[in-house]
Amino acid sequence: MNDEPLKIGIAGLGTVGAATLGYLMNENARIAARAGRALQVTAIVARDRTKDRGVDTSDLRWFDDPVAMAADDGIDMFVELIGGADGVAKAAVEAALKAGKSVVTANKALLAHHGAALASLAESTPGASLHYEAAVAGGIPAVKALREGMAGNGVTRVSGILNGTCNYILTEMETTGAAFGDVLLDAQKLGYAETDPTADVGGFDAAHKLAIMAAIAFGRQMDFDGVQIEGIGDVAAEDIVAARDMGYRIRLLGVAERTAQGVSQRMRPCMAPADSALGGVMGVTNAVMLEGDAIGATLLTGPGAGGGPTASAVLADIVDVARGNCPPTFGLPAADLSPVTQDGTAIPDEGAFYLRVTLKDQPGTLAEVATALGACGVSIHRMRQHDHDGDAAPVTIVTHRCDLADVEAAKERIAALSVCTAPPVSMRIVES
Amino acid sequence: MNDEPLKIGIAGLGTVGAATLGYLMNENARIAARAGRALQVTAIVARDRTKDRGVDTSDLRWFDDPVAMAADDGIDMFVELIGGADGVAKAAVEAALKAGKSVVTANKALLAHHGAALASLAESTPGASLHYEAAVAGGIPAVKALREGMAGNGVTRVSGILNGTCNYILTEMETTGAAFGDVLLDAQKLGYAETDPTADVGGFDAAHKLAIMAAIAFGRQMDFDGVQIEGIGDVAAEDIVAARDMGYRIRLLGVAERTAQGVSQRMRPCMAPADSALGGVMGVTNAVMLEGDAIGATLLTGPGAGGGPTASAVLADIVDVARGNCPPTFGLPAADLSPVTQDGTAIPDEGAFYLRVTLKDQPGTLAEVATALGACGVSIHRMRQHDHDGDAAPVTIVTHRCDLADVEAAKERIAALSVCTAPPVSMRIVES
Repeated sequence: MNDEPLKIGIAGLGTVGAATLGYLMNENARIAARAGRALQVTAIVARDRTKDRGVDTSDLRWFDDPVAMAADDGIDMFVELIGGADGVAKAAVEAALKAGKSVVTANKALLAHHGAALASLAESTPGASLHYEAAVAGGIPAVKALREGMAGNGVTRVSGILNGTCNYILTEMETTGAAFGDVLLDAQKLGYAETDPTADVGGFDAAHKLAIMAAIAFGRQMDFDGVQIEGIGDVAAEDIVAARDMGYRIRLLGVAERTAQGVSQRMRPCMAPADSALGGVMGVTNAVMLEGDAIGATLLTGPGAGGGPTASAVLADIVDVARGNCPPTFGLPAADLSPVTQDGTAIPDEGAFYLRVTLKDQPGTLAEVATALGACGVSIHRMRQHDHDGDAAPVTIVTHRCDLADVEAAKERIAALSVCTAPPVSMRIVES
Repeated sequence: MNDEPLKIGIAGLGTVGAATLGYLMNENARIAARAGRALQVTAIVARDRTKDRGVDTSDLRWFDDPVAMAADDGIDMFVELIGGADGVAKAAVEAALKAGKSVVTANKALLAHHGAALASLAESTPGASLHYEAAVAGGIPAVKALREGMAGNGVTRVSGILNGTCNYILTEMETTGAAFGDVLLDAQKLGYAETDPTADVGGFDAAHKLAIMAAIAFGRQMDFDGVQIEGIGDVAAEDIVAARDMGYRIRLLGVAERTAQGVSQRMRPCMAPADSALGGVMGVTNAVMLEGDAIGATLLTGPGAGGGPTASAVLADIVDVARGNCPPTFGLPAADLSPVTQDGTAIPDEGAFYLRVTLKDQPGTLAEVATALGACGVSIHRMRQHDHDGDAAPVTIVTHRCDLADVEAAKERIAALSVCTAPPVSMRIVES
């Protein structure tokens, strides 16, 4: 078998697909040497056949239909770089696995929504296997580090900064003092954010990655629905200033951890110390922190997106397949992953919280807020009324240690006050 | 084969060996599930049979001779945690490989000195394979990230902070202002430094790790002799202060990179910006920066030593073996590694340098130093004479960009001046 080249079909020649194709064509001998086997791209799917991708594609078979290419005898491996949780990407990946081929994908949405079924399919079909290093944190070898490098550990916690667009926007808000909307517009102009930014700024893209890592880390069935997701759209310039005043930065932080009540998965803006491992991550960089009983903690940082870095992860998977390194999709056989038995979003979260409330500028309002907090068992550590123009006065509060549920109850109560002019915003304060 | 347990023999029950044994005994089911195969420790070698290691060793076969255990039919895998480049560790690893067993080792000295021969032996013997994740940067999955995660990249540079003892000492010197010798004594009392600290503070231990990574990174035969090694013993309190004044920190930095003249490998104290990825690494933490054409750069940080973290790396190798993930030792077949054709220590090194010279406190001395530097083509960017008691005046200099060879020539010329009272010390200033 290893005397035969590994015949590769690539579906999707966007930024990542074109970069992957380029490396496989231009650096073929070097990569094949690492793979221990000849690597040959034999087929591609792309919308535009005329576009110059910097490599000679005249010898390749062009398919219009990814599903047809996925099942074609002319390929051993299907590289899926189309994207999307459903539709043609899913159909093509399924077709390839059913045909006993290896699949390499960068598609985090597909994995997060259908990972369990795809893993079962891959593991029950001789010859099939499913690889997705590029789906988590771009070029950072996070899947490999977690699934293989941490294999001896009882993993306690996986956390990280998993969306470069959000981290760029938050970093820019810090640097420029500008509002979220303005920075988002600039990011869109620079190509750091999509025209429809929901997947990124809504936290969904990062949550996909967190759910994938949690499945590996805890040997547990994929539970994307159990991720508590909050995007960065409510982060205001005042919050950035309040964080800085305390020596913190606001980061969209994903944390999956084993608690006494089960596995919690949270993706939300948090305040982290500016000098902490994750608080110190700037711009489009991604970071993944892996914690376990043997290792303690290890942190991996690097480029979370972009053609070259993501291609680096795709190529690592291709080399793994060529070498026969095909562990179970999520580290344990799909059938052995523990079932999800509890509602992850209901797991208590204790810690200090930051709160911003916007009040009418009139006597007695602060007392009403303090009363509402007290009634919910939330005790105030610090409170500050900010300079303001006009009638609406932003007040920022740091609580003593309390539970998220109490903070949520307090927010509801405050929102119902007649002196409150906008929905309160809260953020978890983390210490590392 | 996979229905049979993988029978493991562990030689050396020091901190790492005892931790590895403990995880394999106490967390056996969990780790075996990740390994996809039963794992059974069947034999051990340790000097003291009576010591309480927290696990029941009564069912294990005790060997006095690691070589005998390595060749014994009762084990499939030999875990070498004895240490030392030669002697019994080498003999036992060779015996295990010759017997067609897999070997997992944490022994960087052995790899750096005999890696080429051992890789050839492992790859030419059916059933044998050689694994050493624990030999580089402790718990950080650096070998896996480089050999597998970066397999698609043309690697350009591998660098890092690879010795926790040195980084601890340098960090303490910064924090306390104390001299090297005093901090070393404290580190020895705290168990962070060995009684004979030469391997650590002399840079040799870190150089072993750098040579191993360079072999993988550049697909090149191990060239430990080609590592230019300088320890931290000459770093003085004045140097720490001078670095801080410029916003830098002194770090024992290992850098292996592909240059126009060949692969250079340097392990030496450098000044790095305090806010840079490597300059920011504090205390006993290790850090590995991997750079390649596709990925750009990724940084891995974590615990570089200690029982648990090192056991984590050993266990990852054991799981790899159980799963059949046995790539060539250094990423390419040993026979395909390119030969070392040039003297690595002769490769030019251009950049800014820091110099400390100690002069008699008398008129005209600075002029003599400046003249010596000028005669060697070294141009001064900044020069500062420090406060001093007594006759010897320390002068610190930052050069403009120049070549290391010119700095070395200038140091020789300065050392020969009658006004110079101690050998000049120099350090490369790096910008990231």
